[in-house]
Amino acid sequence: MPTAKAFAALSRTTPLVAHEIPRRETGPKDVVIDIHYCGVCHSDIHQVRDEWGRSVYPMVPGHEIVGRVIEVGPEVKGFKVGDLAGVGCLVDSCRTCPSCARHLEQFCVAGCAWSYNSTEMDKATPTYGGYSSRIVVDEAFTLKVSPKLDLAAAAPLLCAGITTYSPLRHWKVGQGTKVGVVGLGGLGHMAVKLAAAMGAEVTMLSTSAAKEADARRLGATGFGLTSDKETFKRLAGHFDVLIDTISAPHDLNAYLGLLRLDGAMVLLGVPPEPAKVGALSLIGGRKVLTGSLIGGIRETQEMLDFCAEHGIVSDIELIPVQQVNEAYERMLKSDVRYRFVLDMKTL
Amino acid sequence: MPTAKAFAALSRTTPLVAHEIPRRETGPKDVVIDIHYCGVCHSDIHQVRDEWGRSVYPMVPGHEIVGRVIEVGPEVKGFKVGDLAGVGCLVDSCRTCPSCARHLEQFCVAGCAWSYNSTEMDKATPTYGGYSSRIVVDEAFTLKVSPKLDLAAAAPLLCAGITTYSPLRHWKVGQGTKVGVVGLGGLGHMAVKLAAAMGAEVTMLSTSAAKEADARRLGATGFGLTSDKETFKRLAGHFDVLIDTISAPHDLNAYLGLLRLDGAMVLLGVPPEPAKVGALSLIGGRKVLTGSLIGGIRETQEMLDFCAEHGIVSDIELIPVQQVNEAYERMLKSDVRYRFVLDMKTL
Repeated sequence: MPTAKAFAALSRTTPLVAHEIPRRETGPKDVVIDIHYCGVCHSDIHQVRDEWGRSVYPMVPGHEIVGRVIEVGPEVKGFKVGDLAGVGCLVDSCRTCPSCARHLEQFCVAGCAWSYNSTEMDKATPTYGGYSSRIVVDEAFTLKVSPKLDLAAAAPLLCAGITTYSPLRHWKVGQGTKVGVVGLGGLGHMAVKLAAAMGAEVTMLSTSAAKEADARRLGATGFGLTSDKETFKRLAGHFDVLIDTISAPHDLNAYLGLLRLDGAMVLLGVPPEPAKVGALSLIGGRKVLTGSLIGGIRETQEMLDFCAEHGIVSDIELIPVQQVNEAYERMLKSDVRYRFVLDMKTL
Repeated sequence: MPTAKAFAALSRTTPLVAHEIPRRETGPKDVVIDIHYCGVCHSDIHQVRDEWGRSVYPMVPGHEIVGRVIEVGPEVKGFKVGDLAGVGCLVDSCRTCPSCARHLEQFCVAGCAWSYNSTEMDKATPTYGGYSSRIVVDEAFTLKVSPKLDLAAAAPLLCAGITTYSPLRHWKVGQGTKVGVVGLGGLGHMAVKLAAAMGAEVTMLSTSAAKEADARRLGATGFGLTSDKETFKRLAGHFDVLIDTISAPHDLNAYLGLLRLDGAMVLLGVPPEPAKVGALSLIGGRKVLTGSLIGGIRETQEMLDFCAEHGIVSDIELIPVQQVNEAYERMLKSDVRYRFVLDMKTL
């Protein structure tokens, strides 16, 4: 079996190290991608450190993958050698269940094949992610990336981009929609850029006054300091949609009070403990509390095309793969604006 | 000023007693209704006993009001003497705010005039409810009640009916929609009847196995015993819409697990403490947790017309007004199937 170079976690407690992994033979519908860049997502840390349980080692993280096609199977129609290509959180699904039929493969009833720390649909063959030199993916789960975009900075679109784009579309954000983005990190900064490009009036809601200038640079026209109770009075009933990117505990009822009639608050982060929600916070104003999980393949392509049209990429810090362990430590201190991307030619 | 006979709470701790109240002179757009029947809602008890705070005495409860028009103002166009008429939870609103413009007067930005324990829009004149002989209401807040319906049994439609009808419509319940109704009481039994009439496949979810036969008689085709954990496995991912009528503490995450992709759980009851909601309960399946509050006047009329068309009324126990204090005690023990209605000619 062919092999690829990779950077892998061999256990939950040891740093990531260089490692060799198997990659499958190129199947008739497979695309082989020479990985140029891979974004570093906070969920990489959770899984490397087995914070969600069920982690399997060796683990090669990475689901914000971009590169160039170096080989295609004989039945591949959408890609040719030399094309730019991307791979996100998903590499396969059952393709027949009601969720897959709706192009929502992330909710595949059979359980989709995640790009790493998962298995192929045979439920046996392990999957390895983008901290590696090469990946082999069915073309149905391969995305086209426009050459108009800075390739390294486009990598985080494959997870942070689609995770924020999908709820903005689902909740019909458009011209003049009042959108609040809670938290300015990897997800939050993409939410601001995307919502602004959709025509929304974007307000950044952050605990840190130091983030205001950056939020405005990214496209926000309003700012609310969430450590100040006055903010929750000033912006009461203001928003149509709140995109909540925070994984730390916070008072959802306070944020629900910022929604107008029929407004929706979308949770993207998973705080360690369940939040307390008062029924009256929802009944008064028929408000919606909901969540969102990345997006399907069709919508991911739509997002990439939207980003190409609007010139949107992530704000990144490009680092050699050998610095990934240090990058994890800095991410835990929110010391990155706003996404680390690994330069895979350093592997 | 004209007066009316009524049954009133004079304090939070004393039983309701006969009492005389003022009713305004008939204005140009007013309809005067001789009240025949008034339903008894659980919120009457909460307010009589000041359990929500801010109760004002003397209080004449009652917002499930039906009767016959005995006088109309000179500018009234929609009603004439002799017509059947109904009044629900609202008797006025600002009529100009964005909520009122959307016919959602219950969310009037200026604060609507509730039928009792509230004030007219002058924010000064107290309002008195339906435990009385007569009420004077602007025709814009007066509903038409079909003579096809049993009048006494139609009274609870004005609150229990619209409270369940509105979320069923808002969440697009129709032919084949899988609806779960949580709790079989005043609201729950209306939710079953209405959802079944809309063509939904209705499942009753109850802690009491003794409710199954009644639920099926009302139109449910399925039953889930919620005290049995197996029910939550059997019905996992089954429902498009859950109508939750429970005011006692219960585990919302367990119920969210019963929703399918994009399903919605609508809270109608207000438990005494906030519920704990896990973000993953919403993110996995893009599920919606929301609430609903009665309905606007236009939708209340639509509901009454729907009920007339489908022959839907409430299951009631008709009692003399003098038994209302005893009725409250029985309601606290859920000892009513499913709504007490006061026969106002006994006043």
